[in-house]
Amino acid sequence: MADEIPDIVIGRLPIYLRALYNMVEEEDKVTTSSHELGERLGISSAQIRKDLSHFGEFGKQGTGYHVDFLISQLEQILNLEQVWRVALVGAGFLGHALAHYHRFQRHSFHIGWMFDSDPDKVGQVMNGVVVQPDEEMEATIAEAGVRIAILAVPAAAAQSVTDRLVAAGVKAILNYAPISLSVPPDVQVQYSDPVVQLQRMTYYLRPE
Amino acid sequence: MADEIPDIVIGRLPIYLRALYNMVEEEDKVTTSSHELGERLGISSAQIRKDLSHFGEFGKQGTGYHVDFLISQLEQILNLEQVWRVALVGAGFLGHALAHYHRFQRHSFHIGWMFDSDPDKVGQVMNGVVVQPDEEMEATIAEAGVRIAILAVPAAAAQSVTDRLVAAGVKAILNYAPISLSVPPDVQVQYSDPVVQLQRMTYYLRPE
Repeated sequence: MADEIPDIVIGRLPIYLRALYNMVEEEDKVTTSSHELGERLGISSAQIRKDLSHFGEFGKQGTGYHVDFLISQLEQILNLEQVWRVALVGAGFLGHALAHYHRFQRHSFHIGWMFDSDPDKVGQVMNGVVVQPDEEMEATIAEAGVRIAILAVPAAAAQSVTDRLVAAGVKAILNYAPISLSVPPDVQVQYSDPVVQLQRMTYYLRPE
Repeated sequence: MADEIPDIVIGRLPIYLRALYNMVEEEDKVTTSSHELGERLGISSAQIRKDLSHFGEFGKQGTGYHVDFLISQLEQILNLEQVWRVALVGAGFLGHALAHYHRFQRHSFHIGWMFDSDPDKVGQVMNGVVVQPDEEMEATIAEAGVRIAILAVPAAAAQSVTDRLVAAGVKAILNYAPISLSVPPDVQVQYSDPVVQLQRMTYYLRPE
């Protein structure tokens, strides 16, 4: 079944999950509806129902969804019932911010390994994690069975670091370096580049 | 013409531009082709030619594109021939990293204003910018004519800060807070949430 579900649907599930967490944590909500979720997310309720219907029947006509139940189902679908080991490569300003980002711990991700090639960074402790030298990266990752990495290195280093991560067994990379990565078909990459995101918006702004 | 171009095409233009900058800066390349660009980006050359054809004829059959010319055309299309004033709200770990991100300056964005509600943060200088108190946000932004804001505040504060930014004239928001924002139709939002991006990838990973 999994193979048939469009990736764009998978991409919306974490956004539904995030809204559901907010409902529980900020508002103590017990039930919700596709209509309410859609209003908050700017997505049509029909789209939400269609997305969820790929995975089963989670709500009842008229009464909607139990928030806790829907959360647990989405967590199961997205493989979030375990804690994933994550390596963070790059201990500059961005790496430092990511190391301290509290939402990883709360949402099934444990950043337990950090690496940097700068001798001044090596040995620093960031949120309890000691920055290890770049040379130890492959062996440490392979031994720890880490399959997710976050890349916060300069563009010039990103592809070679990626090749080494992939060789060590990494299957998913969140890439903050401003470059498109080349990876084998069984390795996933997600990109985050604030310049690209801003430039996409300036297209629609009136120049000055 | 602009109105008819799909947003997904606009979203790819900054990625083309980024690859072209790399060709010039790292490799001193003078010409390229849709085939070469496509190889680097994992996008078909036909897609690239089709995307660019929305805006004109930038290359020649057989000889391809002049890199500098294509860069200047894409910069013009994306309104990057000016420097955009950007306000950064939130001076925590992430705000600090964003304030020091050198690629904004190089790519038409000047972060010239920072705000935080924490008295300990106010008055700090980050990469030459003094963090101003939250209360000064609307007046400062309106007076400076800032139309782009980067939001690096906690989820609980994000919607109210957004409402105030929009009231002060902001038309484009890059949101790092883990919440979907509600904005008027003439305001654009781009989202960046590493947890959402990681959760989208764990769907495809084999659980342990």
